[in-house]
Amino acid sequence: MIKVGIIGATGYTGEELINLLLKHPEVRICYLSAKIQFPQKISEIFKKFKARIEIVCEELNFEKVSSQCELVFTALPHTVSMEIVPRLLNAKLKVIDLSADYRLRNLKLYQRFYKKKHSDPYRIKEAVYGLPEIYRQDIKKASLVANPGCYPTAAILGILPCLVADYIELSDIIIDAKSGFTGAGRKLDLSYIFAEINENLRAYKINTHQHIPEIEERLSSFSSKKLNINFVPHLVPLNRGILETIYLKKKKNKLNLKTEDLIKLYKRFYSKEPFIRIYDKESLPQVKDVVGTNFCDIGLYSEKNSSLIIIIVAIDNLLKGASGQAVQNMNIMYGYPETTALI
Amino acid sequence: MIKVGIIGATGYTGEELINLLLKHPEVRICYLSAKIQFPQKISEIFKKFKARIEIVCEELNFEKVSSQCELVFTALPHTVSMEIVPRLLNAKLKVIDLSADYRLRNLKLYQRFYKKKHSDPYRIKEAVYGLPEIYRQDIKKASLVANPGCYPTAAILGILPCLVADYIELSDIIIDAKSGFTGAGRKLDLSYIFAEINENLRAYKINTHQHIPEIEERLSSFSSKKLNINFVPHLVPLNRGILETIYLKKKKNKLNLKTEDLIKLYKRFYSKEPFIRIYDKESLPQVKDVVGTNFCDIGLYSEKNSSLIIIIVAIDNLLKGASGQAVQNMNIMYGYPETTALI
Amino acid sequence: MIKVGIIGATGYTGEELINLLLKHPEVRICYLSAKIQFPQKISEIFKKFKARIEIVCEELNFEKVSSQCELVFTALPHTVSMEIVPRLLNAKLKVIDLSADYRLRNLKLYQRFYKKKHSDPYRIKEAVYGLPEIYRQDIKKASLVANPGCYPTAAILGILPCLVADYIELSDIIIDAKSGFTGAGRKLDLSYIFAEINENLRAYKINTHQHIPEIEERLSSFSSKKLNINFVPHLVPLNRGILETIYLKKKKNKLNLKTEDLIKLYKRFYSKEPFIRIYDKESLPQVKDVVGTNFCDIGLYSEKNSSLIIIIVAIDNLLKGASGQAVQNMNIMYGYPETTALI
Amino acid sequence: MIKVGIIGATGYTGEELINLLLKHPEVRICYLSAKIQFPQKISEIFKKFKARIEIVCEELNFEKVSSQCELVFTALPHTVSMEIVPRLLNAKLKVIDLSADYRLRNLKLYQRFYKKKHSDPYRIKEAVYGLPEIYRQDIKKASLVANPGCYPTAAILGILPCLVADYIELSDIIIDAKSGFTGAGRKLDLSYIFAEINENLRAYKINTHQHIPEIEERLSSFSSKKLNINFVPHLVPLNRGILETIYLKKKKNKLNLKTEDLIKLYKRFYSKEPFIRIYDKESLPQVKDVVGTNFCDIGLYSEKNSSLIIIIVAIDNLLKGASGQAVQNMNIMYGYPETTALI
Repeated sequence: MIKVGIIGATGYTGEELINLLLKHPEVRICYLSAKIQFPQKISEIFKKFKARIEIVCEELNFEKVSSQCELVFTALPHTVSMEIVPRLLNAKLKVIDLSADYRLRNLKLYQRFYKKKHSDPYRIKEAVYGLPEIYRQDIKKASLVANPGCYPTAAILGILPCLVADYIELSDIIIDAKSGFTGAGRKLDLSYIFAEINENLRAYKINTHQHIPEIEERLSSFSSKKLNINFVPHLVPLNRGILETIYLKKKKNKLNLKTEDLIKLYKRFYSKEPFIRIYDKESLPQVKDVVGTNFCDIGLYSEKNSSLIIIIVAIDNLLKGASGQAVQNMNIMYGYPETTALI
Repeated sequence: MIKVGIIGATGYTGEELINLLLKHPEVRICYLSAKIQFPQKISEIFKKFKARIEIVCEELNFEKVSSQCELVFTALPHTVSMEIVPRLLNAKLKVIDLSADYRLRNLKLYQRFYKKKHSDPYRIKEAVYGLPEIYRQDIKKASLVANPGCYPTAAILGILPCLVADYIELSDIIIDAKSGFTGAGRKLDLSYIFAEINENLRAYKINTHQHIPEIEERLSSFSSKKLNINFVPHLVPLNRGILETIYLKKKKNKLNLKTEDLIKLYKRFYSKEPFIRIYDKESLPQVKDVVGTNFCDIGLYSEKNSSLIIIIVAIDNLLKGASGQAVQNMNIMYGYPETTALI
Repeated sequence: MIKVGIIGATGYTGEELINLLLKHPEVRICYLSAKIQFPQKISEIFKKFKARIEIVCEELNFEKVSSQCELVFTALPHTVSMEIVPRLLNAKLKVIDLSADYRLRNLKLYQRFYKKKHSDPYRIKEAVYGLPEIYRQDIKKASLVANPGCYPTAAILGILPCLVADYIELSDIIIDAKSGFTGAGRKLDLSYIFAEINENLRAYKINTHQHIPEIEERLSSFSSKKLNINFVPHLVPLNRGILETIYLKKKKNKLNLKTEDLIKLYKRFYSKEPFIRIYDKESLPQVKDVVGTNFCDIGLYSEKNSSLIIIIVAIDNLLKGASGQAVQNMNIMYGYPETTALI
Repeated sequence: MIKVGIIGATGYTGEELINLLLKHPEVRICYLSAKIQFPQKISEIFKKFKARIEIVCEELNFEKVSSQCELVFTALPHTVSMEIVPRLLNAKLKVIDLSADYRLRNLKLYQRFYKKKHSDPYRIKEAVYGLPEIYRQDIKKASLVANPGCYPTAAILGILPCLVADYIELSDIIIDAKSGFTGAGRKLDLSYIFAEINENLRAYKINTHQHIPEIEERLSSFSSKKLNINFVPHLVPLNRGILETIYLKKKKNKLNLKTEDLIKLYKRFYSKEPFIRIYDKESLPQVKDVVGTNFCDIGLYSEKNSSLIIIIVAIDNLLKGASGQAVQNMNIMYGYPETTALI
């Protein structure tokens, strides 16, 4: 039984973490904090937790969290996490950080995309990028896990096998991403109120989204050259779910690749993975089959003698794209069966 | 051709007014204002108006509006309108006020429900309540029209024929009202962001909603005694539309009333009305058939020897419930065919 | 470990049962059948079950189900269940029936509302109505549980304490019910396609819904006289969730009841119940706090000297309103902790 | 005043045509037919038309339509239109056909994508493709207009200026298209019921959609070589609206093109068009700004020295993508102001 705390308990990822951890037989939630006007029972803030958890959520009290917990999830906005994580680590706690603060190795890119100089640069190298399908062995021993972003999780898992197999050109990768509303976080913005999202659909931040360097950096570590990603995210009127349609250009000598070849490759690549599902030919993932689960579903398409590979990836942005993956990482760190509380 | 202005052009009702008035052959929109950080083309604020209207929207400039317009729609929050309407009227403009400020005769109820003492009490008596089905003759001559609330429009039109026919008890009237999101206005509130409304449904303000005294006051003027309304509004995940399910208790000597009797009564009562549609037996109004229109659809149900009458009323909260009715009132005031720009 | 089967596995309640039972540590799903053109893996029919369950779903094979299971959930349409349940019981299986076929004692009402003469009338008396909050002791020993309807579950749980306390008149009970789409079942009907439901809202089957006799019969068994229910269901554009707004008339000698009195009564009445949550004053249930859970949330409202009690009840129609309650009943029948797989 | 008929009046495009034509001052709807079990008032089929139109809709009676109308809109399924259009033309009626039957010149592609041999091949050459921005002069004189598909309208209008300017490579054009539900038509299919679409998102028909040859054929007529389109349509949970995100590869000698250059090109190209709106830099079209209008909104993106051009196009699939464009074509054919009934 491990004692965990959540800092940033009132955002969508914090809420989802509570929900998952309450189902986990080896975890006791011992501490909750958030930016909040006065201490309040979490079951008053989220009525859905009535009769399930009685803990009070309060402004962060560093003494309390470090004395009452051994593992802390930091579900904080970017640039806030890096102010708090070092103190938690110094107090010998383990940390799974759901912000972007420890994901990027390149400090210049961090500063460009997050508009702030990184205040804890040395610790970035210690942090393990929490994508179990790649870094499982490192996660086992990690004290600080940088939990991946939602778009990067889908993009990296979708592209990696093709990249490792050397099937694709590194330039002109196109990711047309569609996300449900909660991907943006529980923020107060006039463009987020119901009637602006409902019955609407729009692209935003073409080639400027902060997840681009995260995808490029991780994938580049598996290739000889730097990759170049074109990334167009879209906001879709649903609560949860990401669908990414990825367009990859085949290498000249790979034009004969067919859908079946890709399916074989991906099934082999992910054969031991409990949360990756590769779709058979003529069958495509859809958001509703992953929502509420930690699965990442992948569909593949390639015509012989055509130059493109098209990949469809679906995840729940709050589960495999955030809190579910964080719990998967916790399970790995503590030696629990990886699917505990997740299936 | 009349020159009109809209004060409060950036709310949902203001936006809808622009949309309607652009289709009106006898109207020119000459002035737009709103609480706004800097003057901006309305077609920049609402891209939907690109290539349709080029006017700049600015902070209210009283000189401008009174020199450039003869009719002004005030689409302002409650308690703000009463500060501005007197100045417009003093400048000899006609005003159609979409706020609640000139709807209630009872100043004490105004103060209780709107949390502010009324600052322009004498003008309330001059104001004509803009429900054409009742007050058409007065509207023709009005300088100040108090445009009805959305819930009251549906409630009054649904109940009035039964009341006038003396079919129902005055106590224990029950209105179970369901509204789409835009009924609440374009406001910044964490409970209004998409994921809090979508896939959700809730009641709010049981028997405390500010539209209750408006319904009671108007209906009471048609009865010997004061009515008593129980009003439970609900928020439904759709952009537009109100459905009210009204439960009325038959008078003891009216227990034999059947659905057919009610249909006959209502068809007669509203026989000359261009925007009231009475449904035949076993056919019920639904929101999608009134959305985008100025119609008020009414379905009726009564079993012989049962004590209840059940009435279903559907309107578009932004049209018959607000801006559509305001244009209908304008048409009446200026002698245009009442359906101009509305069908 | 018990071996269970599901007959009718491809409807919404069947799908939800599979989902719940896969999380249950003491259950093995051994058999699945449905009206289906050819045998197919359930994980092909519902891709969400890929990598979770490999069983094939087939047309009902009575030999197989009775030899492979000890408990069967029949998630069948009304009037179909009564043809199959007797054979299962004769084969010594236990049955939890999610249809309406064994809920009503009154055979005439069954025939009137379900348009078919009951073919298994004698077994109705053996069946236990599966509402644990009332019939827990009988459920423990039952071989056949008639799992309650979704609307009746919310209505009965909402009204019962007031009825038992003798606070309310038995006539003129009004239930204004709002349901998400899945309440209607996975049926092919032009009025069910997306654009007919989305951005729409409508009432249907006023005072003729088949759940009315179920509510009346169960509640009447707790009162000296027959109750009379007015029931108006509405279809709301959301996938899951029921909200009922119940209007009850206080007895003459109970006019002084206040909200606080009701809250006290309900908290006491349901003090031992794991799935009933009574809301504090000025706090109301909403659909999103029960969706995905087996909870029934109840909010209460009563003004002193006013004649009405208003009760808001929220459940997930597929969980507490169907499959969740069915699993709760299974837990009771087999002596497992009642919340297993449900929290 | 022209007398028009609609064949196929009960589909989404038929319904929208009625709605538009009722607002048209120069049109009288004289005839409505549909596959229908018995003749019925259109205002009974669509209650939204109550009090607006009293015509009966019936099974197609060829005598009636040809004697009562001079112009007919055929809003029929593909492969059905070509059986009926010749008879209408022979009777000297003008026809605007909303099906695909007269859009493709290439009969083999027609047969491959629509699974049926074309039964009226000679008339295809007479038909004018009803995209006013390209074929306005021909439409003026046409007897048979082949109204474009929804996806092709957005794709062609989005790509054409770049193609004509010779900025782009002809191979590897990528169109990632997202459509609201009504794009699929009012069809009975279990995958179309509300809960399968709501809170879901999926790709379908990758590179096999029947609109691909239509886009390729029209665009190819403006280029020296055949184009090659990759087309991935997605189904999004909203009633109306299409958003296409188009990825074009710049020619080698055009790498220095910037967003501003494209905006200038497109504004010039479409300078006389009443329904094309080009967005300024850093401003992107969204579905809600075109829904309910006949506009086609275009946003442009290109970084200097990057190889891709990204174009966002938004239309209302039922208006500019179908019935609105059909009315625009009618206005052109009869010499009415092109925006009549459309703004």
